Amino acid sequence: MVGNIVGDRFVAVSFGESHGKCIGIVVDGCPAGLPLTESDIQLQLDLRKPGQSIITTQRKEEDKVEIISGVFNGFTTGAPICMVIWNKDLDSRSYELIRTIPRPGHSDYPAMIKYGGFADYRGRGRYSGRLTATLVMAGAIAQKLLDYCLGIQTTAYTIEIGGIRAKNLTLEEIKKNRYTNEVRCPDMQSAEYMRSAIMEARKDGDSLGGVVECISTGLPIGLGEPIFGSIESDLSKALFSIPAVKAIEFGSGFDGSKRRGSENNDLYIKVGDKIVTKTNNSGGILGGLSNSMPIVIRIAFKPAASIAKTQKTIDVSNGSETKLNVPGRHDPCVVPRAPPIVESVVSMVLVDHAIRAGFIPLVLKR
Amino acid sequence: MVGNIVGDRFVAVSFGESHGKCIGIVVDGCPAGLPLTESDIQLQLDLRKPGQSIITTQRKEEDKVEIISGVFNGFTTGAPICMVIWNKDLDSRSYELIRTIPRPGHSDYPAMIKYGGFADYRGRGRYSGRLTATLVMAGAIAQKLLDYCLGIQTTAYTIEIGGIRAKNLTLEEIKKNRYTNEVRCPDMQSAEYMRSAIMEARKDGDSLGGVVECISTGLPIGLGEPIFGSIESDLSKALFSIPAVKAIEFGSGFDGSKRRGSENNDLYIKVGDKIVTKTNNSGGILGGLSNSMPIVIRIAFKPAASIAKTQKTIDVSNGSETKLNVPGRHDPCVVPRAPPIVESVVSMVLVDHAIRAGFIPLVLKR
Amino acid sequence: MVGNIVGDRFVAVSFGESHGKCIGIVVDGCPAGLPLTESDIQLQLDLRKPGQSIITTQRKEEDKVEIISGVFNGFTTGAPICMVIWNKDLDSRSYELIRTIPRPGHSDYPAMIKYGGFADYRGRGRYSGRLTATLVMAGAIAQKLLDYCLGIQTTAYTIEIGGIRAKNLTLEEIKKNRYTNEVRCPDMQSAEYMRSAIMEARKDGDSLGGVVECISTGLPIGLGEPIFGSIESDLSKALFSIPAVKAIEFGSGFDGSKRRGSENNDLYIKVGDKIVTKTNNSGGILGGLSNSMPIVIRIAFKPAASIAKTQKTIDVSNGSETKLNVPGRHDPCVVPRAPPIVESVVSMVLVDHAIRAGFIPLVLKR
Amino acid sequence: MVGNIVGDRFVAVSFGESHGKCIGIVVDGCPAGLPLTESDIQLQLDLRKPGQSIITTQRKEEDKVEIISGVFNGFTTGAPICMVIWNKDLDSRSYELIRTIPRPGHSDYPAMIKYGGFADYRGRGRYSGRLTATLVMAGAIAQKLLDYCLGIQTTAYTIEIGGIRAKNLTLEEIKKNRYTNEVRCPDMQSAEYMRSAIMEARKDGDSLGGVVECISTGLPIGLGEPIFGSIESDLSKALFSIPAVKAIEFGSGFDGSKRRGSENNDLYIKVGDKIVTKTNNSGGILGGLSNSMPIVIRIAFKPAASIAKTQKTIDVSNGSETKLNVPGRHDPCVVPRAPPIVESVVSMVLVDHAIRAGFIPLVLKR
Repeated sequence: MVGNIVGDRFVAVSFGESHGKCIGIVVDGCPAGLPLTESDIQLQLDLRKPGQSIITTQRKEEDKVEIISGVFNGFTTGAPICMVIWNKDLDSRSYELIRTIPRPGHSDYPAMIKYGGFADYRGRGRYSGRLTATLVMAGAIAQKLLDYCLGIQTTAYTIEIGGIRAKNLTLEEIKKNRYTNEVRCPDMQSAEYMRSAIMEARKDGDSLGGVVECISTGLPIGLGEPIFGSIESDLSKALFSIPAVKAIEFGSGFDGSKRRGSENNDLYIKVGDKIVTKTNNSGGILGGLSNSMPIVIRIAFKPAASIAKTQKTIDVSNGSETKLNVPGRHDPCVVPRAPPIVESVVSMVLVDHAIRAGFIPLVLKR
Repeated sequence: MVGNIVGDRFVAVSFGESHGKCIGIVVDGCPAGLPLTESDIQLQLDLRKPGQSIITTQRKEEDKVEIISGVFNGFTTGAPICMVIWNKDLDSRSYELIRTIPRPGHSDYPAMIKYGGFADYRGRGRYSGRLTATLVMAGAIAQKLLDYCLGIQTTAYTIEIGGIRAKNLTLEEIKKNRYTNEVRCPDMQSAEYMRSAIMEARKDGDSLGGVVECISTGLPIGLGEPIFGSIESDLSKALFSIPAVKAIEFGSGFDGSKRRGSENNDLYIKVGDKIVTKTNNSGGILGGLSNSMPIVIRIAFKPAASIAKTQKTIDVSNGSETKLNVPGRHDPCVVPRAPPIVESVVSMVLVDHAIRAGFIPLVLKR
Repeated sequence: MVGNIVGDRFVAVSFGESHGKCIGIVVDGCPAGLPLTESDIQLQLDLRKPGQSIITTQRKEEDKVEIISGVFNGFTTGAPICMVIWNKDLDSRSYELIRTIPRPGHSDYPAMIKYGGFADYRGRGRYSGRLTATLVMAGAIAQKLLDYCLGIQTTAYTIEIGGIRAKNLTLEEIKKNRYTNEVRCPDMQSAEYMRSAIMEARKDGDSLGGVVECISTGLPIGLGEPIFGSIESDLSKALFSIPAVKAIEFGSGFDGSKRRGSENNDLYIKVGDKIVTKTNNSGGILGGLSNSMPIVIRIAFKPAASIAKTQKTIDVSNGSETKLNVPGRHDPCVVPRAPPIVESVVSMVLVDHAIRAGFIPLVLKR
Repeated sequence: MVGNIVGDRFVAVSFGESHGKCIGIVVDGCPAGLPLTESDIQLQLDLRKPGQSIITTQRKEEDKVEIISGVFNGFTTGAPICMVIWNKDLDSRSYELIRTIPRPGHSDYPAMIKYGGFADYRGRGRYSGRLTATLVMAGAIAQKLLDYCLGIQTTAYTIEIGGIRAKNLTLEEIKKNRYTNEVRCPDMQSAEYMRSAIMEARKDGDSLGGVVECISTGLPIGLGEPIFGSIESDLSKALFSIPAVKAIEFGSGFDGSKRRGSENNDLYIKVGDKIVTKTNNSGGILGGLSNSMPIVIRIAFKPAASIAKTQKTIDVSNGSETKLNVPGRHDPCVVPRAPPIVESVVSMVLVDHAIRAGFIPLVLKR
């Protein structure tokens, strides 16, 4: 399937450009009968919105969602749900510069070649981080559907920024604290350090990367379709659609690959009547299938490519070496805005597999 | 699409069970006119084959490929290519035990529930590492096609086992040395340490994990389809279909997320007439598109779940706690056998995107 | 793939409801570099528009297309093209009646059950003939692309209404005359009879069906992918997405099935340097592949289900028998509005296969 | 998706060549727990087998199916089911002739061009009618699954050959009589005439076409996904994958398009507690959705292209006009062998939609 479409039974189709008329997404396959309003979606969108604090970009976007199909009398109808954000507060002049001068670390150069110069370069067009708002719109529906039907909840938060790692906390602590600070890190002490590091990078005209951890609970056993449709396969495919993501690990991940099998295997035990594992190094996934333990994913974001510092590059129009100060307003660190995006993408995949596996019917009970 | 099918224009369909009649794969979408014989495929298969050294499983599989469709007079015809390995040397008795007693770290428990007890449990059925041979068969065609049409070459090797990390080497050194030792590590000194670590783990009835690095060169600019069809998305989706893979990173990956933007951005420079980047922290991928630099991926494998040590588990038939000595013959470390599998999977994705983007025609020139 | 999406490399995603905010369609996979304006699309839309003559519905729709993504500086960019018609002139009150009383011949009853009463029933929601405007929008792009790149032209016209069959005409005559009359039949004499028949049916509160013929010329050899992707398979799949279509035939079709092989086979001859067939009973398709002769399809439309006559039906809310006068304004015959829809759908399929087969590149030359 | 794959949740992947090692098909998505043996499939295959009577080809094929994956202990496992027929009784010499001389009415010419001469031309390779045996294998599983889970039954029979039309019979009569004669027509008198017509055509070195009618009963309401996934769309797509099919109609079809709405609309009535329609001109499908009435399809087969009569054609190797006597053994009429093929294809589509709509679970009850 073409690249702007993802999913099989819960499908999302992305469209729109950063500085065009709008950005939007169509969700097809959402069951009929889910109570849904624009507020359900706006709530998630507001968590991603820029301009919320001094550590993120100062671009003021309203990011107000409009549902233009698929919802009737407050319920989803089973028809495609098209959601749109109309663009405002646009100043595209600064992008004229980069039509032929690719910014290091950005998609500019390969996109220039791939689309023969026809692509909308204003605000990076399709490649803008702004497009992640469409993922959040689709994901908000997915999240609500998973919770409404199965009690599945997905929680993402900042676990690391600029090499500063949060200490381990319980899921309860994470849920309670993550939105109490600008960096969305539930470990308050680390959050403070992260904030300082971002401020410092910003002062230097530089940027920082980091890691988001995402935990999904309440899953039934058996989501996922081996071999190529493993739940890890589809989760990672969707997560790599988020700009700046460069690495993903499930459960003990890279660390687990340094251990011995006897240390990394999760032993089965009973807690009450339920079979669970004593540890969760598998991150809730065995053989590509959910095993009912929490799905735990860590997603690494590279430092934002747009920095104020002068960088060497090439003017593609004449092949000459040149220097560039990246224009526009940018985040010194995108990680604090990433948790709602990660939750959205993970939820889209989980709900797709839940429908495929028959855990969610096509018409919900009233 | 159902889980046993992957790809869009170069499609692979997996079938077969570890202890059934056969394992096999159908490749649809291979252009007509590629010279292809069973030896092309056997060569790759032999690199994956177990029983090659004392550090891998002693199961002796012939793993002899038979092409049963799609090739005529020594060339591919444009029709689906079905390849089969007929199973031999099977002893399924030991698996009776695990029908109701799931082995820690394996797919046994979720698969048991998902398929209601109907799945072929012998030799782990569809979940056996043995199925990776089918990936190698499809991948061998992909690799040949990429090299034949575009000069794209993909090289995977062991970069880490049991926490022992190989030192950095040039691609030439990697190509020259990787198959000179049992662990497929081109750093000879580290290879020796890795070998010892495996032997030690084996002696303890335990297992080790590790990391494979994969490098693809010769790529055109612009493979990949944003947003959901980014080349990272499709590569990671396919790579997570390999059993035991738990983490993936492109370029500087997790490490890059600890750096500043000014350190991680790859500056554009000219080498002769060609625009390249000075460093390759992006791993050859920007905005989900290949940028003509080598694609660099690291894939983490967890330590093999099958260990000789006694482990606690539950007998699902009656809910009682029990202990298990995993039966069967197993690899103390699967990493040395993984490089040809990784190369195969990466090549399948690259060739699919090369066809989609029009870099490979549907009929090759004679 | 879910039902509102069609195509593989030129993909259309339909959304919107007849009496909702809008109807729309996203086209993904359109190559970059096609000159495209809203007028290109409006031109085709205007041909489908109701309220054009006394023999079609009097509903006055503006049907004004708005492109909200994917076009920049007058050219397609390679990004998804989202097109919308904002709904106006809506009076949904009459549809309250049919919430529980299904109209004979309509989708009301199965849709009621399938969506558990959640579907938007106003103006028939997703099932409205009005949604065919979205097909025309996507098809207008496909038609332009085919003509621009390959000189492929598709011409549909009314060949039969109410059993009145047009006489055989040349393609030139068809092109010249089809839009000179309200029924879009190039045989002027038959057109007059058809018009009278429609007027008579209308007077009786009744409706008529008919047949559209569609001819595509300029095709390369080899569009289509056997077995399941035969060009006939994909054309018929797309054509049956048009409401009221109940039968399709290629070339000599049903008639050909009454002939002997020696009468129906098309003999190969040379015309100049070109190999052609003497007759075209195959309708330009052999073995599911285009053979460069014109593709000829005939599509049968049932008489419009909405008639003024009183009809027996059941009130599903209480199971009682009842009588119904179908509310709303309707076409006594939909066939005259069908040719642009048929052309659109056929073009969407042809362009998809032309891209798949490499006949159209992903970036067009300036 | 590439052309040799069909379906979404019940997927079939065709492979193999007429005169290669084998023909085969993989079915992915079949739920676990269906009792299945090779006899279930052989039974259907035997109905399609040639060489059964003097009116079909004398090629003696054993057509013995072998299941090589996906079935364990007599039940489907949820894994892909690969089925193969190993080819025997092959004499490919006569096909050397047609490497450059295309037979009128066959795929030879476009296939020659499309695959650049690399295709396996022996016995027409992938384009052979013999490949329909693979459809029957996949369809046999679909038919059993539909009957086992939902009581859906599909019955196809010859309704017309050479213009001779069977009279209308009840479904009971059809089921009772259709296999009592060589032409598979339940109207015994017409069957006799059809047989004579075939014998006469055969004597003249000619061939006949005809029409198969297919009736499916026991359907739930709501199979089908508008717009592009209408049940008519997917049925017609799959049916046009059968060689020689050139037209399809549902319910009153072409005939209905000549009627008035008041004649063609099916009125709702109650029979006991059930809402049904008085007539079934819709062929059980409204708005692309099954309405619980029998699905009625008529499929037109062109007269077999291979005839003994000398025909004019072109030698493509040198562009010269030539004459051809089609070599090989062929059916003077393929229609009598078509009913099991049609049933298979229809069942594959119905079961796919039944799974999508949640009417069949992924694990069947024991």
